[in-house]
Amino acid sequence: MISKTAEYGLRAVTCLAAEAGTALSADLLAERTKVPRRYLTRVLQDLVAAGVVTSRSGPRGGYLLADGTIDRSILDVLAAVAPIERITSCPLGIGAHKSLCPLHRELDRAYAATEAALAAVTIRQLVTSTDPITPLCAPGRRTKSTVAQGKTAQGKKG
Amino acid sequence: MISKTAEYGLRAVTCLAAEAGTALSADLLAERTKVPRRYLTRVLQDLVAAGVVTSRSGPRGGYLLADGTIDRSILDVLAAVAPIERITSCPLGIGAHKSLCPLHRELDRAYAATEAALAAVTIRQLVTSTDPITPLCAPGRRTKSTVAQGKTAQGKKG
Repeated sequence: MISKTAEYGLRAVTCLAAEAGTALSADLLAERTKVPRRYLTRVLQDLVAAGVVTSRSGPRGGYLLADGTIDRSILDVLAAVAPIERITSCPLGIGAHKSLCPLHRELDRAYAATEAALAAVTIRQLVTSTDPITPLCAPGRRTKSTVAQGKTAQGKKG
Repeated sequence: MISKTAEYGLRAVTCLAAEAGTALSADLLAERTKVPRRYLTRVLQDLVAAGVVTSRSGPRGGYLLADGTIDRSILDVLAAVAPIERITSCPLGIGAHKSLCPLHRELDRAYAATEAALAAVTIRQLVTSTDPITPLCAPGRRTKSTVAQGKTAQGKKG
């Protein structure tokens, strides 16, 4: 249900979170996230503009997670690139509907439930999960985040 | 977040529910729901095929709610025209991901929360709400459902 832009932004952020402290090039990010390079560049620009990601120039340059992003929620990251569009006024444009009708109020309540679920999970939780499947990682790829926690990632499924 | 098709299908069903027992023409439905006529026809075909709506031919023909639809949930109606696409396999196509990674598992949990919210509300609840705003109704329009409940719809805002 989230947009393609939102999905791609979350993939990029999760990938950067798994490599905390290391700058990744747009080419490498595109490869790991399986997002078309040009599309990803636009999403990264939005993430940088929103302060979720930073970019570093130079030979060891690339994209890094901004300070604090690791403890922000999935919803926060979505808000930076493609916020969930809540229903705030009558989609039919009925002028007399100064508040939402029961149909659109219930739809908006469902969107609020989606937001609440996404607000309850941080990026850190995604990359420090004990789940055998590592986000976005090809089998056997050892990530810094798993090393940092003293776990051996070798032989993991994900 | 729901698709345009889903939104249009829900408008049509809610409109028919408010006129329970009376067949409405596609033209009238298109006018009330503010959905383009051709688009609405396709949506109505899907609703008929799914048994949510029935069609009646003849001079007093048109579309009616099928038996039982009034007590079905918003989610049931969505399922007939444009189901919420749950995440059941790795969107990146990583073969080794036999189950969802933490990122996509959390996204799917959020979708489950959306579904649960929509499953908790019936079409009847939408059209018998005591809310001053009547779904899809222009100001002052008196609907059969409000008459049936012994309420006066005149002077209502919505």
